[in-house]
Order: sequence, then C-alpha cells, then structure tokens
Amino acid sequence: MKKKKTTATLRICCPDRKGLVVAVTQFIRDHNGNIVNLDQHVDETQDQFLMRLEWEMEGFDLERATLRERLDTLALPYGMWWSLHFSDEPLRMAIFVSKESHCLYDLLARYEAGELNVEIPLIISNHPDLKAVAERFGIAYHVFPITKATKPAQEAAEIELLREHDIDLVVMARYMQILSGDFIAAFPNRVINIHHSFLPAFAGAKPYHSAFKRGVKIIGATAHYATEDLDEGPIIAQDVQRVSHRESLQDFIRQGKDVEKVVLARAVYLHTDHRVIEYSNKTVVFA
Amino acid sequence: MKKKKTTATLRICCPDRKGLVVAVTQFIRDHNGNIVNLDQHVDETQDQFLMRLEWEMEGFDLERATLRERLDTLALPYGMWWSLHFSDEPLRMAIFVSKESHCLYDLLARYEAGELNVEIPLIISNHPDLKAVAERFGIAYHVFPITKATKPAQEAAEIELLREHDIDLVVMARYMQILSGDFIAAFPNRVINIHHSFLPAFAGAKPYHSAFKRGVKIIGATAHYATEDLDEGPIIAQDVQRVSHRESLQDFIRQGKDVEKVVLARAVYLHTDHRVIEYSNKTVVFA
Amino acid sequence: MKKKKTTATLRICCPDRKGLVVAVTQFIRDHNGNIVNLDQHVDETQDQFLMRLEWEMEGFDLERATLRERLDTLALPYGMWWSLHFSDEPLRMAIFVSKESHCLYDLLARYEAGELNVEIPLIISNHPDLKAVAERFGIAYHVFPITKATKPAQEAAEIELLREHDIDLVVMARYMQILSGDFIAAFPNRVINIHHSFLPAFAGAKPYHSAFKRGVKIIGATAHYATEDLDEGPIIAQDVQRVSHRESLQDFIRQGKDVEKVVLARAVYLHTDHRVIEYSNKTVVFA
Amino acid sequence: MKKKKTTATLRICCPDRKGLVVAVTQFIRDHNGNIVNLDQHVDETQDQFLMRLEWEMEGFDLERATLRERLDTLALPYGMWWSLHFSDEPLRMAIFVSKESHCLYDLLARYEAGELNVEIPLIISNHPDLKAVAERFGIAYHVFPITKATKPAQEAAEIELLREHDIDLVVMARYMQILSGDFIAAFPNRVINIHHSFLPAFAGAKPYHSAFKRGVKIIGATAHYATEDLDEGPIIAQDVQRVSHRESLQDFIRQGKDVEKVVLARAVYLHTDHRVIEYSNKTVVFA
Repeated sequence: MKKKKTTATLRICCPDRKGLVVAVTQFIRDHNGNIVNLDQHVDETQDQFLMRLEWEMEGFDLERATLRERLDTLALPYGMWWSLHFSDEPLRMAIFVSKESHCLYDLLARYEAGELNVEIPLIISNHPDLKAVAERFGIAYHVFPITKATKPAQEAAEIELLREHDIDLVVMARYMQILSGDFIAAFPNRVINIHHSFLPAFAGAKPYHSAFKRGVKIIGATAHYATEDLDEGPIIAQDVQRVSHRESLQDFIRQGKDVEKVVLARAVYLHTDHRVIEYSNKTVVFA
Repeated sequence: MKKKKTTATLRICCPDRKGLVVAVTQFIRDHNGNIVNLDQHVDETQDQFLMRLEWEMEGFDLERATLRERLDTLALPYGMWWSLHFSDEPLRMAIFVSKESHCLYDLLARYEAGELNVEIPLIISNHPDLKAVAERFGIAYHVFPITKATKPAQEAAEIELLREHDIDLVVMARYMQILSGDFIAAFPNRVINIHHSFLPAFAGAKPYHSAFKRGVKIIGATAHYATEDLDEGPIIAQDVQRVSHRESLQDFIRQGKDVEKVVLARAVYLHTDHRVIEYSNKTVVFA
Repeated sequence: MKKKKTTATLRICCPDRKGLVVAVTQFIRDHNGNIVNLDQHVDETQDQFLMRLEWEMEGFDLERATLRERLDTLALPYGMWWSLHFSDEPLRMAIFVSKESHCLYDLLARYEAGELNVEIPLIISNHPDLKAVAERFGIAYHVFPITKATKPAQEAAEIELLREHDIDLVVMARYMQILSGDFIAAFPNRVINIHHSFLPAFAGAKPYHSAFKRGVKIIGATAHYATEDLDEGPIIAQDVQRVSHRESLQDFIRQGKDVEKVVLARAVYLHTDHRVIEYSNKTVVFA
Repeated sequence: MKKKKTTATLRICCPDRKGLVVAVTQFIRDHNGNIVNLDQHVDETQDQFLMRLEWEMEGFDLERATLRERLDTLALPYGMWWSLHFSDEPLRMAIFVSKESHCLYDLLARYEAGELNVEIPLIISNHPDLKAVAERFGIAYHVFPITKATKPAQEAAEIELLREHDIDLVVMARYMQILSGDFIAAFPNRVINIHHSFLPAFAGAKPYHSAFKRGVKIIGATAHYATEDLDEGPIIAQDVQRVSHRESLQDFIRQGKDVEKVVLARAVYLHTDHRVIEYSNKTVVFA
C-alpha cells in the first residue's frame, strides 16, 4: 500500500485566528504544490487551530531545505508549531517486547506486507524469548535484562543504541517494563504504548484480572503516547470487545489480545503516516 | 411482545456440585412442566452454580404456594438461593428522574408498547420539570425536593410511598441525586442506576467532562444495581460509542444520551424478565 | 442544545480544482464572517470537491438575499452546486408513521428536548393507531388510508398538504408503505427512510425474518434518502447489533428497534444540521 | 492456553423432547464424568435440541471406544446426531492461501503461541508467493497452480494430499479460488472460508469495491462453512468496522484486513474447540 508519488505532509498547531487556512494553503499553491489531503480542526475550548496538509512533491518548486526555512518564516507571526515529513523518508522504528508475541507478529507481518511506511532496524527486549521471531524477519534482536539495580544503566545503553540507529519512534508492543521518565524524555511523544484496558479504567498492572473481578461487560485496549505518568499519556486509539459471564479470565486475556494488536497497529499507522497531533495531553487524529 | 402463555421463571444460585441440573429439571418435569428456556452457568473461580429455568404453567400440577414450599424443600440440602416469578404477575416499578427526559421517555414508550412486562404506578422526582411527561402517560408524578437538611426525611417519605404501592424495582433514570445507604438497603438489588460513563472509568460527577478532558476515543454508559458505594454496584449492561476530536463536549453529552437510554432500558428488560442473578458484586445475565 | 448565536451553513459541491478552499473562505472572511466550522472532502475517484462551512452571522456584512446573489456569482466559474441555511430558520419536517411507535416517540422526545433544530407541524399516517401519541405532543395527525386503488390520489393529497405546510423534509419513521416515484420526485433528497436491515443486505420486506433464516450474527439498520429504487438510495447512517443463536426472531425485532430509532434520529440530526451532501448516490457526512 | 487436563467434548443435535438434558448428563455422571461445561439450546422454530458438553476424562470409567458404542445406543431412541472429540487429539488443519499474507500470519502466530489446539501439517496455495512464510514456521508448502483446464485434476490431487495427511479441517485464508462442489463434498462442514464482506451483502467478487461504490457506512467480514453455493454457507462469525467518506477504497481494503483476520481466527478457534453445530444452514455457536 506504499504511495507511488512522493508527498510532503505538514502538521501545524497554533492559537486560532482568521486566515490560517488561507495563509498556509496559499503558500503551498504559490509554489505549485498539488494538495491531495487537507484536514483541519479548531479546538474551541482551547482556541487552538490544528491542520494536516499533504501535497505532491512533483512540480513543487522549493527544495526541502528551503521549504523548511520558508516554513519557519511563515510560522513566526502565528506562533505556529509545525512538523514536516516526506513520504520517501520513512520513520525509523524500534519495537520493545517482553514475552508475548501477538503484537510483535502483527506489526512485523504488516511491515513485510508494506502496510506501514517505516524502517524497523531493531527489536529490543528484556527477555530472549522472541529472538526467533525477529530472526525470521531478518531484524536485529537486542536483549537488555532489567533488574531494579541495572535499570538506569540498561536504559542508558538502550537510548544510545536507539540513537545510533537514528530511531524516530519506539513502540512498546506489550513490553512489560515501565520506561523511566528519563527514557521517555529522550523520545518525547515518540514512544507509543499499548495498555490492555479501556483507559482510564484499569490503569496499572493486571487490568484483565481487575476487569474480571469488577464484572464488566466490555473489555478494551488503549494505545497512547507514553509519558512519565504511567497510563496517563495522550490517547491515540481505543477499541473494545463485548464480554459476558460466559468468558473466563483466560477468555478475557485471549480475546483481549486481538483488540490490543489491532489498536496498537492502528496507532502506529496513524503516527507513522503523520496523522496525529498531540496537545494538552490529548490527540487530534486526522484519520 | 407480551408472552401469551403464563410461565414460571426460577433463578437459583448455590455452591456447585454434581447433579444440580438433573435435580432441578427432574423436579419440574415430574410435575409436568414444559421447560421452554434453560440456561445455566458455573463460575469456576468461585465454585458457584447459577441457573435460570422457565416453564409453562399450563398443565403444571402444583399450585403456586405449594410450589414455593416444595422449592424450599428441594433447595435445603444444596444451600440453594432461589427466586420464583410468574409472567402474569409483572414487577411493579417506580422511576426516579430529575430534569433530563430522554431515559424517561424511552422507558415509557417501551412500557406503552408492551415491550416491558411491568406495572409503573408512579414516578418520583426532586424537580417538577417532567410532570407533563408523566401526565401524558397517565402516571402519577410525585415531587420530593431534596436539600442536605431534608434528605433523610424525604427519603423516608419516598420509601413509605414506594411500599404503599408495593414497588419491586426502582429505576434511576438520570436521577441526579445520590440515594442514601438506608434507601438502598430498603431495596437490595432492586435499584437500577444508569451512570453516564463506561465504569469503572469516570465514576462520580460530570463523567463526560472528565472523558472530554482525558481525550478518550470511546464514551459509554453503564447500568448497574445501586449499592452504598457510589458507582461500585454490580454491572448489568454496558455499551459504548466511538468519538473523535471532532466531537465537542456537547456532542459527547448528546450522543451519550442514546447510549444511556438504550443501556438502561436493556438492564430494565433483563431485570424484569428475571434474567439477572447478582452474586459477589457481579452479575450473570441469561440474555 | 440550541445554539445561541445565529450561524449560516454553506454546503458546496463541484469538480475539484486548485484554490477552492481559498476562494470560499476568503469570500466569507472578506465580509467579516467568523468561521466556526469548516470541513471539506475531495473524492479523488470522482474528482469532486465538497465542503461545509459554518460562520456566525453577527458582524457579517451581507444581507441574506445579497449573500445568495453573491454566492451565485462566486459559484458560476466553478460549476458549483451550493446550499445555504441559517440556524434561525429551522427546517420544517413531517413524520410519516404506520403502527409502530418507537421511532416516532424517539423523534418527538428529542424534538421536545430541543435536540433537533426543526419545526414539526404535522404527522401523516396510513393508520389511526398513533394519533394519541401525536396529540400528547400537540402535533396535528392526518390519516390517509392507502389501498392500491386510492394510493395515487392519497399521495397527491399528501403532497398538497405538505406543500401547504412548507415542509422541507419528510421522515419515514417506520412508515410501512412504499412512496411512489412521483412522491419522491416532489421531495428530492428530502425523504429520509429507516430500513430495518444493514443494507444492501436484506432489502425489501421482512428483513428480520430473512436475517433470522440466514443465521447472521449481526443485525442492523440503515437510514437513507428514499429514491425511486426501493432501498437503493444514498445511505446516511448505519449501525449494527450483535446477535447469536440465543436470540429468537422476536428478539431480533425487539433489539432491532433500538438500532432503528437511534440510526434514524442520527440521520435526521445530520440532515437538519445541514451536515450531509448527496452525490453519485452516496453521501458525504460532515459529522 | 492449552488445557492441562484431558477433556471430552460431546455435541448433540436431535428433535426436542422432554428429558434430553437429564438423559445425557445422567449418562456422563453415571460413569463418573465431571462436567466442566454444559451449554444447550432449543430452536423452537424447528423444534431442535442442541447441546455441548465437556467433561474431564480423569476418573471417567469408560474407554474411548466403549464410550462411542454406548453413545450410539444412547442416541438411537432420540434420533440423535452426535460428535465426540478429545482435547488430546487435536484436529489436523490445512490452510489454503493465495497471495495475501495477513490471515496466514495471524493463524500461524496463534498456532505458535499455543492459542489454537490444532496440528497444521501443510499449507496449500495456487501461487508460490507465501512459501517463505510457511518455511519460517517449518510447515510444508505445496503449490497447485490452477487454470480452468487443470482445476479438476489439481483439486483431486489436493484432496489426495489432504487425505494422506488425515486433514480434518480446511481453512481458506483468503484463498482466491472457488473450491468446486466435489471438493467441498469431500470435506462437509469442514471447510471454513473468510469472505471480505458482511454477508449476505456483497457476496461474490470484489466486495470492497462494491461497498465503496454503494457508499456504506460500515464494512465487515464473514467466516462461514463453504458450501456448493458460493457465500451461502452457514455463518460462524461476523464482525464490522465503521467507515466514512474519508476512507478511500484502499482504506476499506487495509482496514478490512483487520476484521478478516480476527473473524477468521475466531471461527477457527470455535470450530477446533468443537463449539459450533451446523444445522439448517445455520450455526449454533456455544462460545
């Protein structure tokens, strides 16, 4: 599903005021850009303007570096945050796993099928269990065992490794360790976690056990940007699954896996296609 | 949708042991009962056996009073809780409301259409706003204004009124007051509340505001038996609605109403058709 | 939920070309219009541009009649279809019913609660059954019995009555008669029907019976603009409900009603808030 | 998630009459079988009784061969169809694929994780494309190219191969060939297909194209037993996914894959755990 033509994707966020759509679309068109997607949103409660714009680079008359300079100039008077990506420069993504394979297989199968526009140079784990899976897809698998004592040093080594590989995005695919605030700070809004509950319900450990005990009639999963506050980061995607008294705790866990992997993959797709903007601990998802 | 033939519905709950299904179904058949519905469940984590059995009274050779005596005898050796209802003796239900009409209209429209096998002799409110709605359906509407000071006396008066009318079931149809522990104790597992969130997420006041602030991608509603611990009672039914950044807080509230009224009506249907068994602060719903 | 400030809502549709967003938004802003909602879509398969724009009338410097003239001028070079509505000029809506009350009650309860920005001057039926419901809400109820022989004359009389009342929108709320092509032609894209299946599955009569016979695991409902070809018109909204072998045909019908009324009400909301654009027998829904 | 203790699972189907539950459960208990799951259903429209019963083999006092003989005797007077499986004799399953990998990866990842109680000795395809996937999991991959001319001979060869491997179940994991009536007849109710639409809507080829053209607001997938009549076989599982005008045809296809693979895997789980009974071209699913 790779796009044939190279496109540029611009995301912007700034205080709302008149003329923003005109200013930005005019700029692209003045340089002969053919806009193929435009989506915008005004958060009236916060007076924020957010927009995603995708245009074809063929015929566009600015070089990439010049474009960035010009965007800086354009953005200045509006106090505009902006981010620009090109479809032929896919994000570089690392996957963190522990022992459960369902999310990992799901991501790698999509990667191989060309469904995700990313490069995956490496997989990191605190356990050796899923090494064989990584090898089947020809991806390096690094084991960093974690104990309370070794965690700071191991995380530092992980960060170094990720930087060596120019990693843009860390995906916690059922990685059963909490990443420290320092780690998160090294990749702001670039660590996606899948939590196996419908947040904010059942934050923390063993959500299926808690859901089963509480007797809920629906279970769910939540993909979100990891922040220092566990399970409190901006939500990217959520989905649910109906259950009844007939489902055992084991059924919750088994059926929940399907929701987890689909929700996580959806969040990764949205992020790597530059469809998410984070602000005020929420997300706008231009899906 | 009223059932033509009179049926008896028996619900039982007891520690699991061999021969329970045989013992109970044999008993019904020995008295020439034609079983039209049988559903059972074993909670293996708690070693509990639960069953719902519905049979036609035509041709059944025990009088209702005798049947109750015989059930006592049958139940004794198993330590069995049981409950028996007849379809021609509908539950008597009171509705509590405040100012929002959507759940009230929904319940009354179903009542009028014969979808719910109940009698609704009265509606109670802390506000006069919905009196006209009650009158349109020819149902008495009693106003009990509540202040912190008057609450105990008003609740006592309400309980008395409910008892005068032989009320079996109290339905809080967006009644924006918390019923006291004393009130709940007067109607154990016979007060159904609709909470406008996907519990246990966003318990307490203003759940849509909290959901909006948190940036969730799905909202929901939960019908549950009210207990002394607010929003902690056994869940009967839940449903959800997908939302995105495009929905404002007002959209959450507007769309949430649809989920609320359908979930509440479903719980009322399940309860009044004797399909719910409560145990360990959970429910088995033989839907 | 009535909006306080008066707004104008403009919908446009035309062949896609560069500069459309700019041209239209510029025009509004040149006349001091504060845009509060803008949503647009490009159908790349058909090269169609569609947009919905809502702005506040306070401070806007064109009279309504002048605005319409100016829009004609603006639209001409683009071959643009456009439609303009003001929030203080609600659509006038007629409801057609037969004997089932659930959709009617649902619409009227929303109407009374101010959830729908419409006027409902009359209800039309081929049966007298729901007269009492209409009366409770103080709405005129006209009975037009239909036989094969009388249908053309009765429909002509209905059309005349609808025109007398300046009806903008006809809602078939489980009206169990097929409206003729002539009738539909009198209200193009202004007749909304609720079909009690997930179209295109189970078009035609008795969809729940067909669904039950086919053994589907999900049932649904579809709100669509009625066209001459029965059940073939542009779909506005759909929703579904999970079922299993435990549900009888009667359960399908009972549970289906909840889906029907919610889906129909959603379509009516979307239409009367001018959020739907029909083209190529499909809809764009700016929800 | 393999069950530790060996269990027997009995499915029965026969005309309804009094005493069926008692007769069967009594028989199991008379031989010291500890029933761990019992689910039954009466189809009142067809007067059919259906039951699934699972009990532990530990302590059960009949040999497997003797048990089968005794079941024949028990079944005779009731005209009872029955089927018996033991959890330590997993079904042997073959997967048919063409070029799309998502369902195949999904099934193999579950297989490897022990989520499905099956043996998968071989994969058959009409194309060589997915050979590498099969090899990664150490499963034999057989290519049978199909042309109109060679189809009968190739199918005969496939059937022979499947019989050599004692295959109990054929899973068409997006196998883009129609299996002939002769092939299906060789594996009655033992060929599961995933169709990429919400049947009976969009049967036949290119359902996403048809769905996109029709402008539906929900897409779906259906797992069913293949029969001679294409897409008309008994439905085992269905699920859906909400779409809007924002989704392109490519988005339908991409998002539909998630529904397809989850629905297919669910049907395979249900079948291989002996939870499905087929009758009258419908299924009862004791989930």
